[in-house]
Amino acid sequence: LDGLSGLRKDNTGYDLRDLFIGAEGTLGVITAATVKLFPLPRARVTVLVSLRDPEAAVELLSRLRAASSDRLVTFELMPRIAIDLVLQHIPNTADPFAAPHPWYVLLEATAQHADALQEDIARALALAQEQDVIRDAALAQSESQREMFWRLRESVPEAQTRAGGSIKHDVSVAISDIAAFIRRGTALCLQQIPEGRVVCYGHLGDGSLHFNVNAPEHGDRNAFFAQAPALNRAMHDLTREYRGSISAEHGIGQLKTQELARYKHPVALSLMQTLKKALDPNGVMNPGKVIAAR
Amino acid sequence: LDGLSGLRKDNTGYDLRDLFIGAEGTLGVITAATVKLFPLPRARVTVLVSLRDPEAAVELLSRLRAASSDRLVTFELMPRIAIDLVLQHIPNTADPFAAPHPWYVLLEATAQHADALQEDIARALALAQEQDVIRDAALAQSESQREMFWRLRESVPEAQTRAGGSIKHDVSVAISDIAAFIRRGTALCLQQIPEGRVVCYGHLGDGSLHFNVNAPEHGDRNAFFAQAPALNRAMHDLTREYRGSISAEHGIGQLKTQELARYKHPVALSLMQTLKKALDPNGVMNPGKVIAAR
Repeated sequence: LDGLSGLRKDNTGYDLRDLFIGAEGTLGVITAATVKLFPLPRARVTVLVSLRDPEAAVELLSRLRAASSDRLVTFELMPRIAIDLVLQHIPNTADPFAAPHPWYVLLEATAQHADALQEDIARALALAQEQDVIRDAALAQSESQREMFWRLRESVPEAQTRAGGSIKHDVSVAISDIAAFIRRGTALCLQQIPEGRVVCYGHLGDGSLHFNVNAPEHGDRNAFFAQAPALNRAMHDLTREYRGSISAEHGIGQLKTQELARYKHPVALSLMQTLKKALDPNGVMNPGKVIAAR
Repeated sequence: LDGLSGLRKDNTGYDLRDLFIGAEGTLGVITAATVKLFPLPRARVTVLVSLRDPEAAVELLSRLRAASSDRLVTFELMPRIAIDLVLQHIPNTADPFAAPHPWYVLLEATAQHADALQEDIARALALAQEQDVIRDAALAQSESQREMFWRLRESVPEAQTRAGGSIKHDVSVAISDIAAFIRRGTALCLQQIPEGRVVCYGHLGDGSLHFNVNAPEHGDRNAFFAQAPALNRAMHDLTREYRGSISAEHGIGQLKTQELARYKHPVALSLMQTLKKALDPNGVMNPGKVIAAR
């Protein structure tokens, strides 16, 4: 199947391309791709913001989408514990604020004129601070400061590993549900594993969260990780309650085939099975992945 | 099948939603949709440009995508004859330029600051004029002038109908092939129907063209339209040569099922038939559309 035409408009039949994208090789093997290019943005504004809670972060997202005319390209939510773990475990990192804050957002917007965009964002941030939506904001003044902000965010997974590893959840919910979901999910995690350290961060602009629980600093690691299946079940049940996804980014693979069978709506699951059988009747395409053997 | 979650990130299995979109009801009936909202842009710049030929229009598209940081939302190509037909048949229309030009582009960009965007676009247009890429440019100075520019573009279909109707092609090719395709397509049309009036206009930013041939002002209309099947065949053959689409926007329906069977790659066609059979084994979903009965 040749899907390389690169046409922006083509209404000649079924969307075969998107059937193969995300199927994790269970319907066929993708051997080539046509890539869409965009002009490089000429300017970029990067800000690390501190705030009270996820509610405030969602409010800020909505304000900044409007203030920047929807030119945000990054909006990453992080709790204080993520920053703590990074500062503790990753060299060459520093907290740009004088005091700790409960939550942080790393945001970035791109434009053709840094000046105009920076003005818009600075104005929206000043107003947000005045109205107590945010606590503080540090605007990257140089490329090296920008890299430092990004280093805080990008080091979270490694810091979590160095801090003893975590039980992970890769979930998404509607952005309007994010704050309530984080509150309930955090309570649920601590109820199941009171000694766990909840590190919930993610791409807030996508509604996608890495809802991880770190092993306690001291204590029995094996006993901690033995609780993973029960915690996964509880967190995925909560995700279903919010009509969210139990795999926002990383797919099903073989680890989550049973979870998919449990959480995917029966009609969707049956449609997937029909498609798998129709396109791969002999079951030779990445067997055992995504769709559980029956 | 409930696909209303509205999640931005969800990697739990096959992309069922996009299988139904564009299937024209032949795999199922869409009964509801979740709609994604964007902040309203605060400012808009609308320009009518005149130029020498489609090559220049493609060059201008590339320059303005870069100059506006890819914020063009409209880039409509029109030949002089389209303007002529509109001025002749549609009341309350006027040519904003003193003299006629061979081709026109109606373009629009949106931003948070009209001033900055207008400056960028004006600078790029001035350079394009200096370098002979464009001939002239009229920037809409008011909402009513903007509406007047749009009226020129949006009246083309009605003007074509009032001028006697046309043999239509709804095609797309790669944007880099547009200019060559228009040249060869125009020659082909005039070779097949020397008395025809080629009115080729469309969404250049999408690579999509309404490649229509109007009936001659005087002469036998029936004899003219009797040539449609042969002209369609020739134009669709040319489109295939450019790896384009024979239905960029309007779908297959029942008019183009035979065309689809002829032009769609056999592997794609066979995959479509497999999907149709798997999802609608009794053939009750919009029968006779898209996929030809065998």
